Amino acid sequence: MALIPFKLTDEFVTQVQALIDSKSDSKLLALLDDVHYADIAEVVEELSLEEATYLIKLLDSEKTSDVIAELDDDVREGLLENLSDKEIADELQELDTDDAADIIGELPEERKEEVISQIEDEEHAAEIVELLRYDEDTAGGLMAKELVRVNENWNVLKCVKEMRAQAEEVTRVHSIYVVDDQDKLKGRLSLKDLLTTSTRAQIRDVYIPKVDYVSVHDKGEEVAKVMSKYDLEAIPVVDEMGRLVGRITIDDIVDVIKEEAEKDYQLAAGITQDVEADDSIIELTKARLPWLFLGLIGGVGAFLIMGGFEDSFKDNAVLFFFTPLIAAMAGNVGVQSSAIIVQGLANDDVKGSINNRLVKEMLLATLNGTILALFLFFFVWGYEKDMAKALAISVSLVVVIIVAGLIGTFIPLFLDKRGIDPAIATGPFITTSNDIFGILIYFWIAKLILSI
Amino acid sequence: MALIPFKLTDEFVTQVQALIDSKSDSKLLALLDDVHYADIAEVVEELSLEEATYLIKLLDSEKTSDVIAELDDDVREGLLENLSDKEIADELQELDTDDAADIIGELPEERKEEVISQIEDEEHAAEIVELLRYDEDTAGGLMAKELVRVNENWNVLKCVKEMRAQAEEVTRVHSIYVVDDQDKLKGRLSLKDLLTTSTRAQIRDVYIPKVDYVSVHDKGEEVAKVMSKYDLEAIPVVDEMGRLVGRITIDDIVDVIKEEAEKDYQLAAGITQDVEADDSIIELTKARLPWLFLGLIGGVGAFLIMGGFEDSFKDNAVLFFFTPLIAAMAGNVGVQSSAIIVQGLANDDVKGSINNRLVKEMLLATLNGTILALFLFFFVWGYEKDMAKALAISVSLVVVIIVAGLIGTFIPLFLDKRGIDPAIATGPFITTSNDIFGILIYFWIAKLILSI
Repeated sequence: MALIPFKLTDEFVTQVQALIDSKSDSKLLALLDDVHYADIAEVVEELSLEEATYLIKLLDSEKTSDVIAELDDDVREGLLENLSDKEIADELQELDTDDAADIIGELPEERKEEVISQIEDEEHAAEIVELLRYDEDTAGGLMAKELVRVNENWNVLKCVKEMRAQAEEVTRVHSIYVVDDQDKLKGRLSLKDLLTTSTRAQIRDVYIPKVDYVSVHDKGEEVAKVMSKYDLEAIPVVDEMGRLVGRITIDDIVDVIKEEAEKDYQLAAGITQDVEADDSIIELTKARLPWLFLGLIGGVGAFLIMGGFEDSFKDNAVLFFFTPLIAAMAGNVGVQSSAIIVQGLANDDVKGSINNRLVKEMLLATLNGTILALFLFFFVWGYEKDMAKALAISVSLVVVIIVAGLIGTFIPLFLDKRGIDPAIATGPFITTSNDIFGILIYFWIAKLILSI
Repeated sequence: MALIPFKLTDEFVTQVQALIDSKSDSKLLALLDDVHYADIAEVVEELSLEEATYLIKLLDSEKTSDVIAELDDDVREGLLENLSDKEIADELQELDTDDAADIIGELPEERKEEVISQIEDEEHAAEIVELLRYDEDTAGGLMAKELVRVNENWNVLKCVKEMRAQAEEVTRVHSIYVVDDQDKLKGRLSLKDLLTTSTRAQIRDVYIPKVDYVSVHDKGEEVAKVMSKYDLEAIPVVDEMGRLVGRITIDDIVDVIKEEAEKDYQLAAGITQDVEADDSIIELTKARLPWLFLGLIGGVGAFLIMGGFEDSFKDNAVLFFFTPLIAAMAGNVGVQSSAIIVQGLANDDVKGSINNRLVKEMLLATLNGTILALFLFFFVWGYEKDMAKALAISVSLVVVIIVAGLIGTFIPLFLDKRGIDPAIATGPFITTSNDIFGILIYFWIAKLILSI
């Protein structure tokens, strides 16, 4: 029995490296025989490119195909460069069509055709080519061709026979899909039903005509929502004519959900692109610098605003010392309210009109702002012994928090209505604009109250 | 065939409400007959408590049990208050043990026992009680008792017969678990295998002795990692003695993954607790105010620091105008680097020592900081015609970015080593501390360079 999880240790990697160095092939095979492909992929990611290539060429392609499918994009890219077209084709031969298509999609254009032509099983190759037609973010791009389909005109006996042949190719059966003579999706059967039905029964009499499906062009994100809402473990995919063309399983959807969450998290933190802690400094700079630059522009804007008020506040220099506080509060409130909206939109939880949202956020911000402003008022009053200044700063804080809350609420809702991913509105975008608005509002109000 | 997704419209809700008002029970039943329980749950969440109670009492408990399990916690809480112990028990009777246990867990202490005693099926009740023993964040808290188990000493024929009886209770079979006479988990069988094996074969000869499992006390997060890494759709759960006690399915894990991601996202945005856009203003204030208060303290800190440098920079007031820029950059860099580490830790991607991480972040921050500082240098020089000031501000920016990056990298790694959720280190916690450190460093360096 396999006790899990496997924990990748430095010793294990060193052991593998030593065996590769000494070309102890049989020992290497024995060591890795019992290791899950997902774990081998973790080991490979720790190896040098040469070591990784050696290992992949040594192991059986039934195993290495899954290892390659599991690898990080950049490790895989390097590895595939070291393999011949034929070697890649042999790996793809072993993979499900969806994984194979994903890998081919990453190859340089000039290699794609050559690799496909070298795949032995022509039907498999044709199915992969079909999948390559679809955008990777759609149901077509997520689906695999592997599924079990039976004709409504068969009886259960014929169905079980055909299924045995088809099931060879399909890792997990889940549902048996029932189609008519035109291959149009009619319904489904569960393995459980098959086990409990007479073998002479006609499929048309026993299948369940109610089946959830998605269309090839539906967005991956939508498929994920549907599958997780209805707790589906597999969903059939139909083309424009209603013909059954593929199937999406929950494990692929788990990946979509995770990627979506990571993307939103990174955007909120001011990181574009899909980077990881282990990426190169250049990659990380590309993902981080643009947002920092935005922050720099915002900071320069704040500087110009403060410079513009320099003469007015000459005798009240202390007011300048509160700009970091005002900017921080504006940024924090903006991020909070935008994050709640972005998350609500992702979960389809945001109902009702934009106006209702804005009214609610205004009440919320007024409540929060007033509580915080009271603290600030008494602090400034006590510290500076100047009630007018304390009042000016506190009132500004309330107004700034309200405006920041409204901007944080409005921008993601507006972007979403325009069909733009609202997640970009969280993070530096909202903090920078709120910094500037916040400081501007602060000085205006202070000027008004202190009648300067 | 059900075309999905169902899209909840205001008209549909109004229609349901009108039918409830006029007590048109048969029309209501007909309207909702074909609607999925997850969709009915969405409708119920839009109704008033009285309307919702009416609807739940009207519909068949086979359907309403799933609806209740699907509802938002707070809606369910109100609804259950309106149902009698017996009514709740009837709903639980229809649910899988894991969902039933979750619902009982939410009931007030004094009702729990009474509701359980009213569940008709005593075995079901006993299983629910067993599940209540486990912490909800562990494998025991996630698992259901429903699964298909066969004894290694049976033959395939007996196995199929027993399975048919057991499968009645189990929504999705996935795997058939093989146990010995002591109920210890020995291995598994797939339905596919059963379909393709002679009925006279002994289970002991055909089962797969390699099976991944988790222990009742393993953390939910760990189970999620294992299941998504190995693409498992179900995993058996064993107790301390290795006895098979339950099963966790991927749909529950999808929920764990989503909740985990949402929690991290909210923490990064400065929101504690599990709040949603539709929660009350009081709930939202409780989740948001503490972090804003932290920001306020930070702002007061920044004010005090600036006040401390007031005399030194009397003749260089322009330096004060760059504090929002410095604070914003320190905050942004801190959030970026902490987010990457937090995400890497969640994915087990962060290997190697803390020192290596810090060196890498230092190089990265130096690169980013230098590029940004060059822009700032030329801007200030051009605008203020004062090279010394431009130099002071730019050099400070580089140092502040490096320190912020190091703090952002170190804190989550440190928290993680201490067993504290590193996600709390992103968001206001890091921005506030970086604001203060940033401003302090800025004035120190400026003072040094301008030899004030």
